[in-house]
Amino acid sequence: MPKYIYNFGGDAAEGREDMRNSLGGKGAGLAEMTNLGMPVPPGFTITTEVCTYYMENESYPDSLEDDARQSLEYVEGIMGARFGAPDNPLLVSVRSGARVSMPGMMDTVLNLGINDTIIEGLIKRTNNPRFAYDSYRRFVQMYGDVVLGVKPKDKKDKDPFETALEELKEQRGVKKDLELTAEDLKGLVATFKAIIAERSPVPLPEDPWEQLWGAIGAVFQSWSTERAIAYRRLNNIPEDWGTAVNVQSMVYGNINDDCATGVAFTRDPATGEKVFYGEYLTNAQGEDVVAGIRTPLQISELKVEMPDIYDELEGYYQRLENHFHDMQDMEFTIQDKKLWMLQTRSGKRTGLAAVRIGVEMVDEGLITPHDALKRIEPEQLNQLLRPVFDGKEKKKAIEEGKLLAKGLNAGPGAASGMIYFNAESAVEAKKIEDDKDEKDQSEIILVRIETSPDDIKGMDASSGILTARGGMTSHAALVARQMGKVCVAGCGELNIDYQAGEMRVAGKVFKEGDFISLDGSKGEIIEGSLKTIPSEIIQVLIEHTLDPKDSPIYNIYSELMGWADEERRLKIRTNADQPDQCRVARAFGAEGIGLTRTEHMFFGGNRIMAVREMILADNEEGRRKALDKLLPMQREDFLGIFRVMNGLPVTIRTLDPPLHEFLPHTDAEIEELAGDMGIAPSEVKTKVEALREMNPMLGHRGCRLGNVYPEITEMQARAIIEAAVMATKEGVKVEPEIMIPLVGFPNELKVQEQIVRKVANEIFEAEGIKVDYLVGTMIELPRAAIVADQIAEVAEFFSFGTNDLTQTALGISRDDSRGFIPYYLDHKIITDEPFQTIDQGGVGKLMEWGVEKGRTTRSNLKIGICGEHGGEPRSVVFCHRIGLDYVSCSPYRIPIARLAAAQAALQDK
Amino acid sequence: MPKYIYNFGGDAAEGREDMRNSLGGKGAGLAEMTNLGMPVPPGFTITTEVCTYYMENESYPDSLEDDARQSLEYVEGIMGARFGAPDNPLLVSVRSGARVSMPGMMDTVLNLGINDTIIEGLIKRTNNPRFAYDSYRRFVQMYGDVVLGVKPKDKKDKDPFETALEELKEQRGVKKDLELTAEDLKGLVATFKAIIAERSPVPLPEDPWEQLWGAIGAVFQSWSTERAIAYRRLNNIPEDWGTAVNVQSMVYGNINDDCATGVAFTRDPATGEKVFYGEYLTNAQGEDVVAGIRTPLQISELKVEMPDIYDELEGYYQRLENHFHDMQDMEFTIQDKKLWMLQTRSGKRTGLAAVRIGVEMVDEGLITPHDALKRIEPEQLNQLLRPVFDGKEKKKAIEEGKLLAKGLNAGPGAASGMIYFNAESAVEAKKIEDDKDEKDQSEIILVRIETSPDDIKGMDASSGILTARGGMTSHAALVARQMGKVCVAGCGELNIDYQAGEMRVAGKVFKEGDFISLDGSKGEIIEGSLKTIPSEIIQVLIEHTLDPKDSPIYNIYSELMGWADEERRLKIRTNADQPDQCRVARAFGAEGIGLTRTEHMFFGGNRIMAVREMILADNEEGRRKALDKLLPMQREDFLGIFRVMNGLPVTIRTLDPPLHEFLPHTDAEIEELAGDMGIAPSEVKTKVEALREMNPMLGHRGCRLGNVYPEITEMQARAIIEAAVMATKEGVKVEPEIMIPLVGFPNELKVQEQIVRKVANEIFEAEGIKVDYLVGTMIELPRAAIVADQIAEVAEFFSFGTNDLTQTALGISRDDSRGFIPYYLDHKIITDEPFQTIDQGGVGKLMEWGVEKGRTTRSNLKIGICGEHGGEPRSVVFCHRIGLDYVSCSPYRIPIARLAAAQAALQDK
Repeated sequence: MPKYIYNFGGDAAEGREDMRNSLGGKGAGLAEMTNLGMPVPPGFTITTEVCTYYMENESYPDSLEDDARQSLEYVEGIMGARFGAPDNPLLVSVRSGARVSMPGMMDTVLNLGINDTIIEGLIKRTNNPRFAYDSYRRFVQMYGDVVLGVKPKDKKDKDPFETALEELKEQRGVKKDLELTAEDLKGLVATFKAIIAERSPVPLPEDPWEQLWGAIGAVFQSWSTERAIAYRRLNNIPEDWGTAVNVQSMVYGNINDDCATGVAFTRDPATGEKVFYGEYLTNAQGEDVVAGIRTPLQISELKVEMPDIYDELEGYYQRLENHFHDMQDMEFTIQDKKLWMLQTRSGKRTGLAAVRIGVEMVDEGLITPHDALKRIEPEQLNQLLRPVFDGKEKKKAIEEGKLLAKGLNAGPGAASGMIYFNAESAVEAKKIEDDKDEKDQSEIILVRIETSPDDIKGMDASSGILTARGGMTSHAALVARQMGKVCVAGCGELNIDYQAGEMRVAGKVFKEGDFISLDGSKGEIIEGSLKTIPSEIIQVLIEHTLDPKDSPIYNIYSELMGWADEERRLKIRTNADQPDQCRVARAFGAEGIGLTRTEHMFFGGNRIMAVREMILADNEEGRRKALDKLLPMQREDFLGIFRVMNGLPVTIRTLDPPLHEFLPHTDAEIEELAGDMGIAPSEVKTKVEALREMNPMLGHRGCRLGNVYPEITEMQARAIIEAAVMATKEGVKVEPEIMIPLVGFPNELKVQEQIVRKVANEIFEAEGIKVDYLVGTMIELPRAAIVADQIAEVAEFFSFGTNDLTQTALGISRDDSRGFIPYYLDHKIITDEPFQTIDQGGVGKLMEWGVEKGRTTRSNLKIGICGEHGGEPRSVVFCHRIGLDYVSCSPYRIPIARLAAAQAALQDK
Repeated sequence: MPKYIYNFGGDAAEGREDMRNSLGGKGAGLAEMTNLGMPVPPGFTITTEVCTYYMENESYPDSLEDDARQSLEYVEGIMGARFGAPDNPLLVSVRSGARVSMPGMMDTVLNLGINDTIIEGLIKRTNNPRFAYDSYRRFVQMYGDVVLGVKPKDKKDKDPFETALEELKEQRGVKKDLELTAEDLKGLVATFKAIIAERSPVPLPEDPWEQLWGAIGAVFQSWSTERAIAYRRLNNIPEDWGTAVNVQSMVYGNINDDCATGVAFTRDPATGEKVFYGEYLTNAQGEDVVAGIRTPLQISELKVEMPDIYDELEGYYQRLENHFHDMQDMEFTIQDKKLWMLQTRSGKRTGLAAVRIGVEMVDEGLITPHDALKRIEPEQLNQLLRPVFDGKEKKKAIEEGKLLAKGLNAGPGAASGMIYFNAESAVEAKKIEDDKDEKDQSEIILVRIETSPDDIKGMDASSGILTARGGMTSHAALVARQMGKVCVAGCGELNIDYQAGEMRVAGKVFKEGDFISLDGSKGEIIEGSLKTIPSEIIQVLIEHTLDPKDSPIYNIYSELMGWADEERRLKIRTNADQPDQCRVARAFGAEGIGLTRTEHMFFGGNRIMAVREMILADNEEGRRKALDKLLPMQREDFLGIFRVMNGLPVTIRTLDPPLHEFLPHTDAEIEELAGDMGIAPSEVKTKVEALREMNPMLGHRGCRLGNVYPEITEMQARAIIEAAVMATKEGVKVEPEIMIPLVGFPNELKVQEQIVRKVANEIFEAEGIKVDYLVGTMIELPRAAIVADQIAEVAEFFSFGTNDLTQTALGISRDDSRGFIPYYLDHKIITDEPFQTIDQGGVGKLMEWGVEKGRTTRSNLKIGICGEHGGEPRSVVFCHRIGLDYVSCSPYRIPIARLAAAQAALQDK
């Protein structure tokens, strides 16, 4: 007979962390903590198999009720209390716990096992009638809501329990729940019961066992609600996974002043520093710490208040880190001077902390470099590259008395911007800024007394977050760290008045739109906007203004990158069009250029005139005349790039965008051009009009230009090869790779290749010198991936252009996707923005086919990616998995790609 | 040892028609004719294997020269003349002949085996010095050009031989070659030789054997010219196929009046009538008949002039048709009263003739219905559906004296239009007409003395072609029949003056732009524009104004369609949006509707106002209000369609195009709408602007509309299902198939399907009646094809939207393709216009995957196609091959699709 229930508590648990499939995530975690010998409130987990059984048979396995009674007795034994016993009652919580968390599932019922008789025992035991009635009314409210389904009838209807609570407070003339007396709460229990009697066909059970059985049934039934089924259908979660149910004895941090509740970290989650770090509140519930309603005390205060407990807690923290080999985020509750551990899990941390903790744990011998590499999210490296305040300027500002206040350094980094007091106005302001020219844009800083989930969009729109209340584990601090935002939390000196729309601090008044600066690493709030300078890593690597030995951050970064480079198989190249960009890319570790866009060189002064002349020419002769002017400029560009990239491959793409992109569009521009070219403005206008396309993305661009106007490709091939020859003569080692874009039919490439080879041979013959070069193509149309075997007969390399491949495979214009993609993401119709991370199920399949077919024809085919996905970690891992040789990304994303490539390689081990 | 040379002539040939790979197309054809016992000028074919050998070894097989000498002796024996013998010389032609014809290959050298000595023998034998010197100068010219490479140096340079000829005519003061004397031509031979001596490094060989060997080498070398190699590379023709060389004795139709040359058909190629049909010219060369310089005589005249020859020829024609089981197009030459058969091949014919010949040959027992079905090009059926002149109106015009003249009925049909005298002005005029509204457009009629290949584009732009000279086999007549154009040829009464830009006939003068009418079936030229009425088939099937028994054409059509329907496996549906169209489609044999575009119903009067209201609504409530107005209209539309399609499936697609297509665009329209809606024009303008997209084809359209605005899908589902319920109550049998467009992610379909099913269930419950219906999707994005297995979990049917699938798979906007697709086709970068016929190598692969994956999930998945390719014969065959259940096309293409589907099924047998 299968085992349906697993107990935990005392000094042992029947379950283990690796039994998530049966116990769910929550159940497995509770079991593991118990096994580590920590004081976990005892309880038991009913397995997911029972859920499956229940769905199939609409009843429970025969033995279940007996098993549950036995498990409850086991819990009673440990707690020295009895479920349903009025003299010494055991109360329990009931929670669902599937393998993955899922909206629509029943969440929690607390304080279960109570009724009008039993509460007397609870009052006697705690000697706190107010606490007892508050617990009772919470039970009735939760049970009524989640088990009996007493909810608002529609969107306009209010929650009936909350309404009753508000009415009571109004009657009593009080504002806070805490101001209600035990008698008030007792009355509220009666009111709540009346609401249930009126609204629910089933009454609230008085019998504790019936309460428990009802709650368990509600969890299992919630697996089959319409909402849960729809969610699973959209997210491909199997129906038969089921959910587990956790029944656990209650412990309380809010009975009296010998009670407390808190959160602690084994290292500082903001900076990564190896210190025991945390905060707590006396006589409080866990949600009070997170909700930011009271600013909690530092954990060091606990040492003073309850030294024994502090010592016990401190005794656990290193053990937990050693066991899980990672920084832990622990929740604990102290009830009547007894410590209970409620949860431990890997702690969320900033990017800076992630890197520092990873590298230092390796140095401490706690984890291996592989572990460190696997654990750091590549995107987090971004935080190490962010600008910091210019030290001199900040010092000056502080000397001038502009330091307004200090708060908790909850999210490191530097942010200067305009303050806004609510999420909507922050989002609105961000939109206005985004529409400005980049140089005129300002950052947004969200200032709140405390934040809640309603503020997420506003936090996302902001660069910095400042709160008056709440600690390092408050909502604001947690979310800021997750989002990588600068955050100063719990700054009690702030006086924020939403009504007046102002913040008062240090005797000054700030309105919406005023500028302040936040140093999230130090917790400082400074008046006005402060200048930023590049991060230390950039100062060391690129600006050479900082000695490596003076920068611990650089050294951590460098150590991590070294490990990454040892592991990864993928090469990392960069997308760069100018020698300057190439220099930055090399400093970040680029091993070549994956994409030089020749058209980026077409803008600016003289050049655009020659380009326009070429486009407006009526015949080949006119085009050649204009191209002759462009040739020396392009050659000079390529020579500059070859010099910087000495010894590394350089992929240069021939002309790609629709020609009309280069044309003037305003009347003024048209007149100027017409004047310069000595033709009538109307003639220019006609030509521009003729070149306008309905769907330029699918128009006359890419190799379609070089095929219809071969002289363009000739000029570009000449510029590349002549530059390569010149560089070679200078002693530079060149590896040009000429890339033909937007090929769909193999012949398109054949014709272009013939042009390139012909020009190259002419130059080699004339110069008496030969340079090795490759001719290849972008794979950026579905057709190209489909006929990759034929294309590889000509192409010596492929480079996936995943921007265009995504647009065509999905039939979505990136420019026009805002009408539905955000809606799709919100409504879970799709899970990822396909222009951010490769759509592996669609675009990825085409890539796999392209690789497979290409290598069937040419086993040593060099294959890379140069779409913007090339710097996105999940996409990098995918590129590794399907066997690409390299990814190419913008210079500043190279460190991210290096780390992601290493993670990909480690997945193979 | 392999056999390198195959002789033919006398009463036998060593080769056969099925040896094309060795003998090339031409060599195999000559062998077969010989084997049939016809008098073919003897000769021999050097195989393609020799070409391969020559390329590999740069020399000929050892035995080749001996073999060739023996073969030449064999020819000499038959012809009673000797190669290189001055007393009785044998002259030969040398021609290349690969498996497929190929540009860049050497074509022909005639009269080879002549020199200053031998010509004397030729003069003696023919007693015609002018003929002999004309032959000699032609040989020198051709040999100089194609063997010795004496050609114009560049595009501006003129052909040196033609220049010398022109200069001579100018000296002599004559206009035509024929006016030059024997002495003149003798001098020209000397001039030509001097040109060769000056321009060619190698002199013109005097020795006949050297001449022959030089010409053979030139053929083989021409296989390896840059142009030929590039062509083969683009067209995937293997290098090792090689070319054969044909050496054949010359026969002449132009020595004296006992000579003639002609062309004959075993049936009338214009009407298909079973009569011996042809024309010839006495004392002429073959090219004179085709070039249209002289209008040839009807073959019946030959019976008078040379009764024995006529009898002999008549004796062959039925034998040839019986042998090849098809209408033959024969070339013959009479030299000194001896008949030589030079060629027989399946004759080109009009669509009308193709159908009539096919059906009649079956009735005669000559071929099977299968043969007939295979032989008729489906597109040719179009010609049977073309309008004809209104008999009454034409009679009236003739009575009014408007019949201008009669010519040859070379291309049947009726055409009225504006006349133009050269190709350029016809093309220009066509462009102007195409830019007009359809109702204001006029047809173009090209009028020429005779046509040449330079006129092709002008012929293509014209509906009718009229020539003053040339017969049924003239260039004009041949091309018109191939293109399916109306043509009256060889109307000697026309006096066309290109200089004056006018045509004089029947005492009247016509200028460019004047209207005439051509009855190509009768050869009549009528003044002015004549009204047309529908073809007989449409009169019978749709208008019911003609009794089937009075229309032979209808009966032929009907017989053919009957055979087609017996063979085909594919069902044929139609794309139709209105009951009228549905009626036409059923008359043509539609077996259901494959696509009803609901948005086509959105235009017109009241409706567009409601649609615009919906689009401009700021919220769901506003949209619902507008949708409520549309509901009854859409329901009425669907009910009308269900009634007509009683008993057949009807596929209805939910809203597809980008919403801004429905919006007003001009200022006037915007003002009107703003007025009607009681809002400011600026507000309308802002909304229109906000809806504008960069690439609308890839924008917010298709199911993306129904997903973001579910109320639209709700309304449409309601209209469809309510109409289906109403129809059912009327006793109509309905099979609605609701089709969701532009699905890329399976969830997009899941969400839409849930909406449809919910609405349907509500209606069924309310109405107390259930109607079977299907929910399916278009497969029109590459991603949809890739994840077809997942989509088929929801979709009950697929319909390939190959228009969009082509646009996305190839990354080509149909609207913007004119910048490069025509160039690609001209330059053979691609062989087919992908929006006309399915790109089988790219789009087709996605379709194959879609079918395979879809049926993996749902083995009985119904799959069709509703893109415009569904009515294109090659695409229909492809759809059959990959296992679709039906194709859907516009009503008038249904007969074509039925025939193509039958051909596809026959290919399986």
